[in-house]
Amino acid sequence: MNAEIIAVGSELLLGQIANTNAQYISGQLAEAGVNVYYHTSVGDNPLRLTQAIEVAQGRADLLIFTGGLGPTKDDLTKETIAKALGTGLSMDEEALESIKSYFQKTKRQMTPNNEKQALILEGSQVLKNENGMAPGMFFKKDATSYMLLPGPPSEMRPMFSKYGIPAILGTLKRKEIIYSRVLRFFGIGEAQLESELEELIDAQTNPTIAPLAGDGEVTLRLTAKHGSREVAAALLDALEEKIMNVAGDFFYGYDHDSLVEVGMRLLKEKGLTLSCAESLTGGLFQSEIASISGASTVLKGGVVCYQDEIKKKVLSIQERTLEQYSAVSEQCAKELAENVRTLFSSEIGISFTGVAGPDDHDGKKAGTVWIGLAINGRSTKAFLLNLAGGRNSNRKRTAKYGWHYLLKELS
Amino acid sequence: MNAEIIAVGSELLLGQIANTNAQYISGQLAEAGVNVYYHTSVGDNPLRLTQAIEVAQGRADLLIFTGGLGPTKDDLTKETIAKALGTGLSMDEEALESIKSYFQKTKRQMTPNNEKQALILEGSQVLKNENGMAPGMFFKKDATSYMLLPGPPSEMRPMFSKYGIPAILGTLKRKEIIYSRVLRFFGIGEAQLESELEELIDAQTNPTIAPLAGDGEVTLRLTAKHGSREVAAALLDALEEKIMNVAGDFFYGYDHDSLVEVGMRLLKEKGLTLSCAESLTGGLFQSEIASISGASTVLKGGVVCYQDEIKKKVLSIQERTLEQYSAVSEQCAKELAENVRTLFSSEIGISFTGVAGPDDHDGKKAGTVWIGLAINGRSTKAFLLNLAGGRNSNRKRTAKYGWHYLLKELS
Repeated sequence: MNAEIIAVGSELLLGQIANTNAQYISGQLAEAGVNVYYHTSVGDNPLRLTQAIEVAQGRADLLIFTGGLGPTKDDLTKETIAKALGTGLSMDEEALESIKSYFQKTKRQMTPNNEKQALILEGSQVLKNENGMAPGMFFKKDATSYMLLPGPPSEMRPMFSKYGIPAILGTLKRKEIIYSRVLRFFGIGEAQLESELEELIDAQTNPTIAPLAGDGEVTLRLTAKHGSREVAAALLDALEEKIMNVAGDFFYGYDHDSLVEVGMRLLKEKGLTLSCAESLTGGLFQSEIASISGASTVLKGGVVCYQDEIKKKVLSIQERTLEQYSAVSEQCAKELAENVRTLFSSEIGISFTGVAGPDDHDGKKAGTVWIGLAINGRSTKAFLLNLAGGRNSNRKRTAKYGWHYLLKELS
Repeated sequence: MNAEIIAVGSELLLGQIANTNAQYISGQLAEAGVNVYYHTSVGDNPLRLTQAIEVAQGRADLLIFTGGLGPTKDDLTKETIAKALGTGLSMDEEALESIKSYFQKTKRQMTPNNEKQALILEGSQVLKNENGMAPGMFFKKDATSYMLLPGPPSEMRPMFSKYGIPAILGTLKRKEIIYSRVLRFFGIGEAQLESELEELIDAQTNPTIAPLAGDGEVTLRLTAKHGSREVAAALLDALEEKIMNVAGDFFYGYDHDSLVEVGMRLLKEKGLTLSCAESLTGGLFQSEIASISGASTVLKGGVVCYQDEIKKKVLSIQERTLEQYSAVSEQCAKELAENVRTLFSSEIGISFTGVAGPDDHDGKKAGTVWIGLAINGRSTKAFLLNLAGGRNSNRKRTAKYGWHYLLKELS
């Protein structure tokens, strides 16, 4: 099976947004072993969309559309596909109910054009939209399968991974299946990891190893092809063990794990609570924790202490520490971690103080960061980072290093 | 003239990167008044690239290629185009010199495959690469123009805006240029905004109005075509005024503005400082502020008070308030805003307390949120939200509503 992803929306052709939907869907399909040969973007124009459908029908057997399922007049993906394929549209009562209850819940007024969103292509399987109003659709006609997904990534992504991928896999009858496992590393560069694993990468044919870097992390995708899931798993296990012998110190998780999720799982298992004093990160470290459901069992809370005055007043940092060592120092990082731990009565206190950039500050280079870590019953530690990114890359990297050191200390 | 952008690279089809090149080029072409009707992405595969060229030749008169100009074996854009068009390749001495000096400058060793990068399509105008090695190319054959650009955005962007756009405009004999302006709205749905502006949208031909929704915001792109910049600006001004009469209450900014940036600008102008008490947002509101350089002049800091215990201990919320009204209440939101303002000695205190979801909590529905706003010298207010998204959509939406209400109060 090979797929083409067709993104519909004039905003793409005007350069207002990037086609991140095609990227997301492609990544998911690659994992599922479905080839993608083309991406197409086309505007909200029935004639040109029809032409794009005809071209894609000639070169792909799965057409995935994103966008153009909204309530307004220029949302015409469904209508155009219906016309091109000679299929009718009918009202899906369940989708209509869901739209009505969305309006009731948000106490907003439903306008007649919102009903249009509940129209579906006849004979299609409805993909539920749990984060918005427009339902997705999947159906097969002649030898070609069609999937329609909404445009906003916050609606499309969960719909595609929860309902779209299973629907596609259900239509496949494959003998050799691709099994893959992603190993995630932090604190080591892509070139370094690749050079340490060079012999292994060159010698491997099944499973293969594909490194990829992004956002300060490196992942290795191990891919095995085999008819038996058990044999494939054993092949992956054996290769993983070899890799761990070389680079295990930097490994933190699998597949879609993130440092935050791995860290939170560990803290939950150990029954430990956390509080945070954030200067340059400005709340980012806590916000990433709060993004995970059930965060309140681990996160007691914390203080964003952007200014020295606040470090003194709210977190009782000594005047002397700031004068003698400055706010960006090992001493201040340790004091912040200890004091936030005391104020919030948590087992662990973590602190971030540094120069996010873009400019140097107070004689300290942009990218200079201290992370403080106070764990109940242990001596307080601090870790120095020298980062080389822009302001927000430095802030994000700092939060990740926070988890990196916390995981190292606890395991 | 209408253009198609063809991105070449298997990494796009594997979902490893997003096609930000197409976005950049499209934005530049829109400003220059050149229509883009399609984007295509295709892998490093000569057969499928050839097919993509044939399709594009049938529907566009300018084909812009990105990627596949590098030194490795899978870089084959030039070679494939040469074959498809029956054009030869020849060594460009100037490009070769430039590649040699690049290696001398970076003290790296030049390998023979690097010479391949200096090959250009015969009869093409060379577009100089000032940030890398592969030169760009522009030529016309029969009725179609072709432009080849390198894949890395750091090389492609400056090359395209400095040399690519002028080369394209040089071939045009136009009188009319496109001018556009984006108006940004928050707090109103796309369908509602469109239905309020329906008559206006239907009646407009120049400028046109195109609505777009995303992340709880709605934008209207106004596009005027005219030979004179002044007349186009006057047309856009007149239309903007009509729109503001209907929907001005929800307007917050232009073009690439964000609520945070607009809010921060206003607070800076007025010389006001801010502190925050964040429960469900968990630091997100402050983190978004901290992402902007110079945040420390406005943001004093704040407290993430995820648990009732912390609301009491760190922010002195009265036991009685929590017992009588619960943490998710108008009373608690007001008290939090007032107390964080006092603790951090800022002019403005803002608070967020609510149920992020996915589950209901303590008899309150997921998506129930109170925002408190305490401004020096005014009576404290609180605003109720009933959100219907997932956990993180609710958290992000809440932070945006924070700015929405803050802007309303201050302007």
